[in-house]
Amino acid sequence: MRMVDLIAKKRDGHALTTDELDWLIEQYAAGAIPDYQMSAWAMAVVLRGMDDRETTDLTLAMAHSGAMLDLHDLAPITVDKHSTGGVGDKTTLVLAPMVAAAGLPMAKMSGRGLGFSGGTVDKLESIPGLRTKLDAAEFRRLVREVGLVLAAQSDTLAPADQRLYALRDVTATVESLPLIAASVMCKKLAAGADCIVLDVKYGSGAFMHTRDEARQLARTMVAIGNGAGRKVAAVISSMQQPLGRMIGNALEVREAFGALRGGGPPDVVELCLSLGVQLVRLAGLRDDDAAARALLQDVLASGTAWAKFCQMVAAQGGDVTCLVDPDRLPTAPVQIALPAPQAGFVAAIDGMALGLAVNELGGGRAHKDAAINPAVGLALWAKVGDPVYLGQSILTIHAATRAEAERVVPRLLSAYTFSAAPVSPPPLIEEIVS
Amino acid sequence: MRMVDLIAKKRDGHALTTDELDWLIEQYAAGAIPDYQMSAWAMAVVLRGMDDRETTDLTLAMAHSGAMLDLHDLAPITVDKHSTGGVGDKTTLVLAPMVAAAGLPMAKMSGRGLGFSGGTVDKLESIPGLRTKLDAAEFRRLVREVGLVLAAQSDTLAPADQRLYALRDVTATVESLPLIAASVMCKKLAAGADCIVLDVKYGSGAFMHTRDEARQLARTMVAIGNGAGRKVAAVISSMQQPLGRMIGNALEVREAFGALRGGGPPDVVELCLSLGVQLVRLAGLRDDDAAARALLQDVLASGTAWAKFCQMVAAQGGDVTCLVDPDRLPTAPVQIALPAPQAGFVAAIDGMALGLAVNELGGGRAHKDAAINPAVGLALWAKVGDPVYLGQSILTIHAATRAEAERVVPRLLSAYTFSAAPVSPPPLIEEIVS
Repeated sequence: MRMVDLIAKKRDGHALTTDELDWLIEQYAAGAIPDYQMSAWAMAVVLRGMDDRETTDLTLAMAHSGAMLDLHDLAPITVDKHSTGGVGDKTTLVLAPMVAAAGLPMAKMSGRGLGFSGGTVDKLESIPGLRTKLDAAEFRRLVREVGLVLAAQSDTLAPADQRLYALRDVTATVESLPLIAASVMCKKLAAGADCIVLDVKYGSGAFMHTRDEARQLARTMVAIGNGAGRKVAAVISSMQQPLGRMIGNALEVREAFGALRGGGPPDVVELCLSLGVQLVRLAGLRDDDAAARALLQDVLASGTAWAKFCQMVAAQGGDVTCLVDPDRLPTAPVQIALPAPQAGFVAAIDGMALGLAVNELGGGRAHKDAAINPAVGLALWAKVGDPVYLGQSILTIHAATRAEAERVVPRLLSAYTFSAAPVSPPPLIEEIVS
Repeated sequence: MRMVDLIAKKRDGHALTTDELDWLIEQYAAGAIPDYQMSAWAMAVVLRGMDDRETTDLTLAMAHSGAMLDLHDLAPITVDKHSTGGVGDKTTLVLAPMVAAAGLPMAKMSGRGLGFSGGTVDKLESIPGLRTKLDAAEFRRLVREVGLVLAAQSDTLAPADQRLYALRDVTATVESLPLIAASVMCKKLAAGADCIVLDVKYGSGAFMHTRDEARQLARTMVAIGNGAGRKVAAVISSMQQPLGRMIGNALEVREAFGALRGGGPPDVVELCLSLGVQLVRLAGLRDDDAAARALLQDVLASGTAWAKFCQMVAAQGGDVTCLVDPDRLPTAPVQIALPAPQAGFVAAIDGMALGLAVNELGGGRAHKDAAINPAVGLALWAKVGDPVYLGQSILTIHAATRAEAERVVPRLLSAYTFSAAPVSPPPLIEEIVS
């Protein structure tokens, strides 16, 4: 087989065979196919597409390019979750202890934030001392002992995907639904969970901009997972505005504490319940959605979900005093209010603009190895549909310096649209794909 | 400017600006853009295309990536010629001395053969001692003293194109009309000729398979040349069968000797006259085609074209005794006849199949640095339209060994189609684009 022939085949719109895709990924992972051939193939995929069979084959080949975790000696069923990412998305921090407390061990590997969207690992690391870089033995021990582990993605997980993803990032070949689906699912398959729930977001604060794109991506990922023998469901949720009220690493952790302790905010809790219901159902713990929801509401109300979270923080070396006193989390020295520039109803909030503002404050990273400031961010006091009067504080900017806070004000103001007439809040959960 | 943004722009079907293309080629030539980004961009060009303005901009940027020859201190007008390549194409060897003898200095740089098609430099080098690797000073001296120089392409000519071409070859991004046109024309522009004739071939023995593709390529190249202030015309010729009767380096040189000395074959002579007429017309040496043709027929008939060729061979160090005694050219030890497998009329000859057979005999190269055997090849005794009887020799195989000759017989037989009814020879010159 010659790579140039496989590139030409895709360039001409033909599907590669299973053998061809296996060979391609195997050779790429071995360093025998140079990046300049891989990027030409990736661009051909972006512009010519891949069918479902090719996408599944690519996913499996990438999953098998590294270690394939098997956790069945630790627990009969383990669950996992993936979000396509969005501004203010602290779902994992709430959902994971909920389902673990309900009896479904969750062994999750997460990424760091990149671009306008944050990452679970960065958020967790704003708890002083908490370690997310765990070796295989510790990861397995925590699955067994705690039933909940939230770790940084291992370098040995789907290395072909890690290399291809880095290449796609610099060759304008990220925007391909089959490549996005394969990249997500190969890591989920390699991480070994039996039941997987996908949180597929669309809107201004997400990577997918339309509901159709989100639905297509969800269907593709569910098909890949099912094809590989896993139980998979996807929740399509709207990111027409940021999720919850907090954006920024430590601020989001603080909001997750609140959600686990019964203090909302309602959209975060509702999304976590919806995702959790799918996992409880897929795992066969309850037969119907209402019973599954009741189970999860119970672990929230009884405090067992919060206790599971605290147990995880302790097990991963985090400072448990933060759990008692959240003010011990990193706090920004400057906090200034942004007054509403007009009276009316909040009609729209551009999540991406807020996410980029948090980046500019130092809360996100422009490249993979950049340092971040966990304390900075935004606390939103008005969301879509809320009435505001002129000069009312619509958000608080948490910044390292006053100058930095003031620099993002124009960007923040441009993110808001106001209406004289009342506005209905946008829907949150759009559809379940399974 | 960031390369990833330029790739995305082309991926999304937009045209790059002049500044963007200048920057892209300048950075690539400087080694600041890695091959993996360049190949992704090239694939986006293959699948999204480029408009005429972009193609001209790319061509000029690649031309200016190295030395731009200016020969005006040596001659008021110089001419050049390019062929898109085809099996049995020895046109340069005949055309160049014809137009030089007519008073138009030709300073031509040529390539080596690659794939199924031969190259002028390989053909010339079958004349013992003849040097095609000339430095700039010698090249200029020969333009002035002989008015004819046939050299190997200099490494300093359009280096960005040379690097990009090598990359395209291994990333399945050769098949793009704008990229092909830009690659040809940047070298012609850098080589400094005022008037350029393009021999654009199509058919089974050429790189373009249909007349429409050939016409589109011809128009694009003429537009680029005109846009750069050069006079350009293209002759679209059919390669439904090989050109002339000889395929293989020394055999084609021998056939070129014959054409220059008045011994045909008619298709080679006719194509050279057609190409030459365009150069004579573009250079303003004669006003109409009939007068231009008469001038060129005269230099052939009077022997001045042959004398010019001999002068060039001597000036470039070739063994002039070959000119008197062509049997001193490399000769294959084994020559065996291929008998016609049936009686009838030759209906079609697949040029590519014959070209690949010559490669297999050792007359071509599979990769850039391979050695070739100049002596091997094929002499065709029957062309399309010719009647043959059963067992008549339709060609002679010139090979290094009997086993090698016999190995190509099935491939050769498969290249021929016979018809019981008489067949008209295919047309040669299809159209002039200027």
